[in-house]
Amino acid sequence: MKLLRYGPLGQEKPGIVDDNGDIRDLSGVVSDINGESLSNHLDKIKATDINSLPIVEGDVRYGACVGNVGKFLCVGLNYADHAAESGMPIPAEPEIFTKATSAICGPFDDVIQPKNSDKLDWEVELAIVIGKHTSYVSEEEAEDYIAGYCVCNDVSERTFQLEQGSQWDKGKGCDTFGPIGPWLVTSDEVKDPNNLSMWLEVNGKRFQNGNTKTMVFKPAFIVSYLSQYMSLQSGDVISTGTPPGVGLGQTPPLYLKPGDKIALSIEGLGEQSQTVVEYTQ
Amino acid sequence: MKLLRYGPLGQEKPGIVDDNGDIRDLSGVVSDINGESLSNHLDKIKATDINSLPIVEGDVRYGACVGNVGKFLCVGLNYADHAAESGMPIPAEPEIFTKATSAICGPFDDVIQPKNSDKLDWEVELAIVIGKHTSYVSEEEAEDYIAGYCVCNDVSERTFQLEQGSQWDKGKGCDTFGPIGPWLVTSDEVKDPNNLSMWLEVNGKRFQNGNTKTMVFKPAFIVSYLSQYMSLQSGDVISTGTPPGVGLGQTPPLYLKPGDKIALSIEGLGEQSQTVVEYTQ
Repeated sequence: MKLLRYGPLGQEKPGIVDDNGDIRDLSGVVSDINGESLSNHLDKIKATDINSLPIVEGDVRYGACVGNVGKFLCVGLNYADHAAESGMPIPAEPEIFTKATSAICGPFDDVIQPKNSDKLDWEVELAIVIGKHTSYVSEEEAEDYIAGYCVCNDVSERTFQLEQGSQWDKGKGCDTFGPIGPWLVTSDEVKDPNNLSMWLEVNGKRFQNGNTKTMVFKPAFIVSYLSQYMSLQSGDVISTGTPPGVGLGQTPPLYLKPGDKIALSIEGLGEQSQTVVEYTQ
Repeated sequence: MKLLRYGPLGQEKPGIVDDNGDIRDLSGVVSDINGESLSNHLDKIKATDINSLPIVEGDVRYGACVGNVGKFLCVGLNYADHAAESGMPIPAEPEIFTKATSAICGPFDDVIQPKNSDKLDWEVELAIVIGKHTSYVSEEEAEDYIAGYCVCNDVSERTFQLEQGSQWDKGKGCDTFGPIGPWLVTSDEVKDPNNLSMWLEVNGKRFQNGNTKTMVFKPAFIVSYLSQYMSLQSGDVISTGTPPGVGLGQTPPLYLKPGDKIALSIEGLGEQSQTVVEYTQ
């Protein structure tokens, strides 16, 4: 299933994509696509005759594909070639940081360049959406706790991230730095999360062209690993790192500026696009 | 006002401490102590005749003093002497990391030592609770966005934090690593957050004995600074760093083990106590 949230910011309704690519209104079945519905009502959605639901007409805004996210965790340097372009060693174990949940936005919303930003960068990433509470889960059982996957643009500000202290969260959590969606594609429709092609373009030029098969740590391992440190709740989002081709890795480095258009996609998970805009009060 | 949440985990009700030190049930006035009530209903609570509210009888569990926290941000190395005992330089600007919101617990709940933990440590900290949404707020205006303050034990696992990668969040976000409370003391009752004595004891021995006056970056500056990177929402909690005397700073280092009793307090904000227990399934 391709689950989504549509409507104005803060008033999103749950939806599902039908076989024709139309959005159907799911609000008669669940109140939102969030931890509660992923944990308790996925079967109810599966049992619903999608074609009997109202079609959502007209152009609607896509919201973040999961609402009320509790934790937005990220794995850094999870593609060997990206670690190399960042001038950093491949980590011996996952490097974990956090994006602020207030950074989450819709997949087609503008990316706002913060004040004082001069190194605004892009990162196409496969994100995992947790479907059930878990702690200390084994790698073998971890997939049972994954509700599905979505595209994430792990928008980053390299000055804030790398030049203003040792910890990265400041450069990862700015507002609009976390577009997720367009869809949460449930696990049963993602045949092999460890073999998905992915790309990102800026102003029509392809900068990232990768595949999740070159990830150092795979989704099931990541979920198991993280669950050794903290419990995971339904609706938590874990972004799994980016392949090579970010702005920081260009020669010379190339960063985003207002007016730039970003497009990104992962096989089977849909496409996002954002326009970079200046911060205005 | 001293606001609090009481009752079983996940079913906490809002309360307020009256002049006799009794808890009064606030659930007829607000549904919870959380971002929504701090932002919209503080005046309503202030206008309430506290003595007319039902007294909460008997021994009740204290929950975390704020519910539904969106972000749990922390400032690292914010006391010069603590930076020294950690073997790290005083940061030129605030070092920001994140605690998982799933780490939040009540002020008297057990602290669970995670599996594979061998360097479990304590940190008494002054935490700021945000009362209104803000971005790019000046230091002069920052106090208008602070609902109040509370005690936080920034429980830390030094192996996870410092020996398993460069980013600290893994060693800061384990379940029960964020006791906050007993009370959220509203700003009007905290005369000078920049001059509050604080202490922490383990098994009756005092290890930390500090005062917020030795903080490198003060609360108003921290709120202003953070708001340059991300919007802050009502109910966000920002823990502001710890004075010297953590386990890591002892010679030789001394860490917590199951059975240990922690007690900690900040002037005017009440006292917490926790027992360290082993993780059991």
